[in-house]
Amino acid sequence: MTAQNKIHIFDTTLRDGEQVPGCKLNTAEKVEIALQLEALGVDIIEAGFPISSPGDFQSVREIALAVKEVTVCGLSRAVQKDIETAAEALRHARRPRIHTGIGTSDLHIRAKFNSTREEILERAVQCVRWAKNFVDDVEFYAEDAGRTDDEYLARVVEAVIRAGATVVNIPDTTGYCLPHQYGEKIAFLVNNVPNIDRALISCHCHNDLGLATANAIAGIIAGARQIECTVNGLGERAGNTSLEEVVMIIRQHAHLGFFTGVEPRQLNPISRIVSDTMRMPVQPNKAIVGSNAFSHSSGIHQDGFLKNAQTYEIIAPEEVGVDSSKIVLTARSGRSALAYRFRKLGYDFTRDEVDVLYQKFLQVADQKKEVQDTDLQELAQVLVAIG
Amino acid sequence: MTAQNKIHIFDTTLRDGEQVPGCKLNTAEKVEIALQLEALGVDIIEAGFPISSPGDFQSVREIALAVKEVTVCGLSRAVQKDIETAAEALRHARRPRIHTGIGTSDLHIRAKFNSTREEILERAVQCVRWAKNFVDDVEFYAEDAGRTDDEYLARVVEAVIRAGATVVNIPDTTGYCLPHQYGEKIAFLVNNVPNIDRALISCHCHNDLGLATANAIAGIIAGARQIECTVNGLGERAGNTSLEEVVMIIRQHAHLGFFTGVEPRQLNPISRIVSDTMRMPVQPNKAIVGSNAFSHSSGIHQDGFLKNAQTYEIIAPEEVGVDSSKIVLTARSGRSALAYRFRKLGYDFTRDEVDVLYQKFLQVADQKKEVQDTDLQELAQVLVAIG
Repeated sequence: MTAQNKIHIFDTTLRDGEQVPGCKLNTAEKVEIALQLEALGVDIIEAGFPISSPGDFQSVREIALAVKEVTVCGLSRAVQKDIETAAEALRHARRPRIHTGIGTSDLHIRAKFNSTREEILERAVQCVRWAKNFVDDVEFYAEDAGRTDDEYLARVVEAVIRAGATVVNIPDTTGYCLPHQYGEKIAFLVNNVPNIDRALISCHCHNDLGLATANAIAGIIAGARQIECTVNGLGERAGNTSLEEVVMIIRQHAHLGFFTGVEPRQLNPISRIVSDTMRMPVQPNKAIVGSNAFSHSSGIHQDGFLKNAQTYEIIAPEEVGVDSSKIVLTARSGRSALAYRFRKLGYDFTRDEVDVLYQKFLQVADQKKEVQDTDLQELAQVLVAIG
Repeated sequence: MTAQNKIHIFDTTLRDGEQVPGCKLNTAEKVEIALQLEALGVDIIEAGFPISSPGDFQSVREIALAVKEVTVCGLSRAVQKDIETAAEALRHARRPRIHTGIGTSDLHIRAKFNSTREEILERAVQCVRWAKNFVDDVEFYAEDAGRTDDEYLARVVEAVIRAGATVVNIPDTTGYCLPHQYGEKIAFLVNNVPNIDRALISCHCHNDLGLATANAIAGIIAGARQIECTVNGLGERAGNTSLEEVVMIIRQHAHLGFFTGVEPRQLNPISRIVSDTMRMPVQPNKAIVGSNAFSHSSGIHQDGFLKNAQTYEIIAPEEVGVDSSKIVLTARSGRSALAYRFRKLGYDFTRDEVDVLYQKFLQVADQKKEVQDTDLQELAQVLVAIG
């Protein structure tokens, strides 16, 4: 594992995640989450958008003071006042980064800026130069890069790297790209930007079509080395790439040759902290961190799982900070799961006894969503009475 | 758009979705959802696993009686009794399908069946033959195909098609595959199974790493023509491919040349029906059907959106049955969003007035998660008082 294969995890839970309806946090809450993110092992924390409000400015400032080693990043538009404000908020950061940029798709150039490609190219270079007056580490974002013409995007990327950008962020702002398209876009930049080796390419993907994680992975396979992501996939509209998903894909698919600095056992604890603090529920069927992610309920699955967990589980729950897998008893469960749960309650029934109990179990299960230990104890009493 | 480019939507909300902890439904609820799925325009409804319990048998039977045109499918293991029971439950279906199969990965063969590849191949052929005694339309699943050796999988697929399988399902049972790997697996079958043109290839993907949707799309690009999916992505553990996501990807990426029979305006209504009936919450940042999927809250996005919705939205919310996009006011909102919301309330402030109000608005917004109409009306009164 060489440094070239490290995937830098850029967490934007406190910026793209926190700007979501209902997710607003106060400064103390943001500092607490930032400390948890540092403990998790992310490389960069995007702490906020300092020009947007006095409260956000204050939060970025406090996070810069509170964390120790991790890079702290502030967002800005390609506007001098934004960049000055971000620099001021980051003044006490040990490793400050300014994230600045502008829309580069023809739609954004026309509809948002009423401008031209050449003017936008100049503004892109200018904003990186402004930021370089304050910090060494400047990340440039080409907003709506997902729908930006590749040739023009390559010209913009080359120019901002020449102006000093250390990271070039290629956002699929609207979540439009398919994985192979996003991967091809990154590969185009790797192959057509002469000075691309002087910067890191970053993936910032949105989940409008459910593809944010797959697109980021396609991006790193094609040559990107930073992923912008959020805990629980929070973010504008349908959210961003999920931090927990990309971290575990990189671990599970070791053959890709990548690694991150994230400690996987902290993934479930931080998911719960973020969900509770932002009051944003995580659906039970969310990958890695949903409450059902390690639950087995169908008879076929339970039987296989009890013979060998790997038949239905590619990740051991302990690896991501979950106590253990669950064998949930429903009308779809089979005899082996029933016998297993009885054994956990201290009953050691024979095969024939389990057969008798199973028929009674199904009658109970057809009436209920889930059969609990108390139901099993009642069932066991029936058998004892018959016996 | 030729019939060869139709993607068949196989909904398994009532089987893989309903077997999830807490999702159990009674027969009347299942029939109601089946009728909604037929109205939505899916091609196949997997109605249950008839051998698993008397209640499930009854539900498959009632659904078969209730729906009109859609194919109704029942699941079974490669066991004669399972298949007979499935056939009995489907007796009144106008278009019955039996879905049968067996694990084909070496791990499943050894750990679950204590068997060999050759024995499993024989059992695969045998179960298709049994099912063909009852119905013409037989779908075979090669469980854990995602981790099955490609050469062996091709032999199994060829043999079951020869035995009469009309559909061959290639499940990534544990959600392990990356999209390019899953696509390559489907392409291998297309290129190495001599009789593959006599059956449809089906994608059944799980979401353990957040890739179920991307994998299914990679599968159809490689030659599959059926996607197994669920409303809201429900299903074992982290769930299955989301129906709403694949349908909208196929619509948005018309250049792929595919189409489905699904009516997109029904996607949000059916998402709510399933979520309410199964009491399974959909997280706000769920693609297409989450409550925030069409909400814009950051100032940059709101400003762009109000100039041209397409700058930040690739799907018009009406297209998927949502009333309208939301402009949510938070501390990250800008002047243009504030002015827009004031106009909706009937106030027509000048630019200078909005500037004054914006500073006061930020003070309110830094204290609150979301600024409501009542807050705006109070703010407006302040200005009137000053004026």
